Order: sequence, then C-alpha cells, then structure tokens
Amino acid sequence: MVSRTQVQWVQSLKQKKFRQRYGMFVAAGDKVVRELLLSSLTIERIFALESWLEQHRELLRDVEECCQPVSESELKKLSFQEMPNAVLAVVIIPAEPARLPKEGWILALDGIRDPGNMGTLLRTADWFGVAGIYASPDCADRYNPKVVQSAMGSLFRVPCITAELLPVLSGDQRPVYGADSRGQDLRELIFTERGILVIGSESHGLSSQLEEVLKHRCKITGRGDAESLNASVAAGIILAKAMGFI
Amino acid sequence: MVSRTQVQWVQSLKQKKFRQRYGMFVAAGDKVVRELLLSSLTIERIFALESWLEQHRELLRDVEECCQPVSESELKKLSFQEMPNAVLAVVIIPAEPARLPKEGWILALDGIRDPGNMGTLLRTADWFGVAGIYASPDCADRYNPKVVQSAMGSLFRVPCITAELLPVLSGDQRPVYGADSRGQDLRELIFTERGILVIGSESHGLSSQLEEVLKHRCKITGRGDAESLNASVAAGIILAKAMGFI
Repeated sequence: MVSRTQVQWVQSLKQKKFRQRYGMFVAAGDKVVRELLLSSLTIERIFALESWLEQHRELLRDVEECCQPVSESELKKLSFQEMPNAVLAVVIIPAEPARLPKEGWILALDGIRDPGNMGTLLRTADWFGVAGIYASPDCADRYNPKVVQSAMGSLFRVPCITAELLPVLSGDQRPVYGADSRGQDLRELIFTERGILVIGSESHGLSSQLEEVLKHRCKITGRGDAESLNASVAAGIILAKAMGFI
Repeated sequence: MVSRTQVQWVQSLKQKKFRQRYGMFVAAGDKVVRELLLSSLTIERIFALESWLEQHRELLRDVEECCQPVSESELKKLSFQEMPNAVLAVVIIPAEPARLPKEGWILALDGIRDPGNMGTLLRTADWFGVAGIYASPDCADRYNPKVVQSAMGSLFRVPCITAELLPVLSGDQRPVYGADSRGQDLRELIFTERGILVIGSESHGLSSQLEEVLKHRCKITGRGDAESLNASVAAGIILAKAMGFI
C-alpha cells in the first residue's frame, strides 16, 4: 500500500525546490533503475510491481528493506509519466566531488537549459569516457526527471560539478576549446592530449565572459542551410575528434 | 477573431489521422515560420499577433491574404504549447519527391520513433547537406508537432521519402553503411564519395532484414560505460566523417 503522504512526497520531487529541500530525486523505469542499482548512489525507496521485484531479487539484495511492492494503479499515481513502467526509485542526491580529475578531457556546459539536451550531453560524455563535467548554474538541473530519463545511467557515472565557468576554467591547467561557429575548421585543428571542451546553448552560443579563457574555438563545417547543429550532436562530433575516436 | 471551427481545425492537426485527412500540418513559433516563408511550401493560414505581422510585412508580401491577426489568448487556444510564441501557420503537406538525387550522401532512418530524435536527425542531415532521407514507415511522422519543432527549418529543405527500406536500398546504386555497435571501428573505415548511412533506433538497432543490403557496418568506439549513443549524435559523428567534415 502506498500512502497519500508518499504520493505527495514523490510528486513534490518533480520540482527543484523540493528536490533541494529533501536532497532527493526520482529515477524511473526498468533500465534507469537497474543502472542505479549498479552505481554507488544511496537509494531511499524503491516502488515496484511485485513481478519486477521478483525478477530482480539478486540485484536488490542490498536494498531489500527499501523495496515496496505497489500495484499498477499506485505506480501511476506516483509516476511523473502517463505510462509508467514497472519501477520508480527515490534516490539521495550525492554530494558533488570537490574537484575533477586532472587527467583526461572535461566537458564544460555553458547555459544548456533544455533538459533533453542536458541528458544527452551527459550520455555522450559518458560514452567517450570524459573525466568529468563542469555545468554552469544556469544549466538544466541534473536531477530534473527529463534529464534523468535522457541521461539514462550516465548521470550516475560521470563526475559533475556545478560552478561558474570562468573561475573554474581559469583555475584548470588544461587548454580550453570552445565550440563556436566563428571558430577554426575542425579539420585544421590539432587537439592536445587533455583539454576542456566548452559547449554553449544553440540559441545563445558561448558566454562572452569566457573569451579570456578560450584558447581555441572550433567550428564544425557543414554544407547545408541549417542554422545550427544540436548542442549534443556538436559535442559528440568534437569529442570524438579531440579524444581520437574518429 | 478566431472562430471555434478554426480552433477545432488547428487542434485536430495534432493528430496524424487529421493531418492525413486534411493534408495539412502546423508549424509554430517565430523561427520556424520565418524559415517556412523562405521555403517552397504552400501556406494555408497564418495566425499571428498584430505586432508580428507588422514586423514581418516584407516577408509576408506573397501570403498577405492568408494572414489573420489574433490576440494572445486566441493564439493560446490555437496552440499546442503552453507558452505559444507570436505565430502559428497551417501548411499544406507537400507531395514526396518521386526519387532522391543520385549523387551525394543519403541518410536512411530505420524505425526512429522518438519525435525529438527524428527532428534532430533532419536538422543534422541538413547541416551536412545530405542529398535526401529515406524514412521507414515506422519512423515518427515528420509532421508531428514535436518533429516540426526540433527539426527547425530543416524539415522544409531536405527531400524525404517514406518507404520500406529494403526495396529502396536494394534499388539504389550507392554503397550502404549501417551504424552498428558490432561493426568496424570508424577509425579504420574509408568512405566512398557517395553512400547511404542507415541509422536504427537506440533500443532496437538496425532491422535484421537489412543485413543483405548492408555493405559496411561502422561502430563509434568509446571508452566509458554508456550502453549506446543517442541516434542523432551517432548520425552526426558518422556523417561528419563520411562526408569529410572532420
């Protein structure tokens, strides 16, 4: 049985204000919750269909006492989606790391407000194995349900720090590259072994205040008439080249 | 003044059934409608705030008789979005071209059901100047409002044919490349001057029935733990390499 208080509690986590107040967020769906169970995050509660709990008994061994079986209609009340799938977890928002690893590539996100883009960027960064992410405070909240959904499990794996970009980039030894349509053609650029790639939003581009820390600006040349590439597509192309996967 | 019949008519176009019945779709927002006005598509009606009509008088010269000024509250009633912006157009769905150009690169979409992905794929294809797109019948409808939104103007520019992929790919002279996590590393592949790139959905990959037409399978190598790349990010990376933009 799910109590009314539980429904209110879970539903409140749709809003950033309550996520911050309780220090928790919601991860939903079979795939995302399975990735979560393999991560180091602390789970507060799992609401799932009996059949799902049964099927994943092995994976749930260490969190048995948080598991609560629910009916399909209860799950629907708890869920943010119209068509909830078998499971939903309430998770403790982990503390951000104090700093990112000194080696490897870093992705810096400058004002990425669209949650879908934000999630896809996390996933792309995870795919190529970046060492971490800096996100400016005006990026979409990483624990927004849409970000959690589109990041799939990558949210639980890639170290991420929310910070004003100018001071953190100034304090980082790595050369800073920015994606910029007025930059140098990607074909002509030679990338260093480690670096930071800054991606701005499609509508506003890179913040002008970052000018002083940008060492290189790179442009993805095209041939068509589209005004811009999607931010996560651009990040994927530049990371693939910079990190030697292309 | 907007009539009730007009509101019903526009609202019905949210559904594929009615888009097919009337042969029309809705394009909304300043940016998308401006791109539309520069395209060859036929506009049935434009509903816009007086101020927007005033501001774009030059651009609207040939479609003056379709323009209907509306108030903000009327626009809200017509719109599919909670926060409509200044303009909304009802547009005739154009006939598909009989065939795609013989030269250049083609993007073939195999079961891309997510409308946001579908739109971003159209935009990416447009950016690199692909000659056209084949979309399997189980792809998201191109005139779905979410596709129109995320494709921005690219929907109006890239020639696209909906068709079963096996016969059209068999009948095309170009070599067929498929994005496939069990394929050859992108770094080792040499691409021909023209070709077809097939992208499947993230959850299902490429249809097994396409095996016989696939000449090359290419894999984007990564280093992290993400299970897959987003379909439009993968398409962007492979097209950039295949078409020599990287």
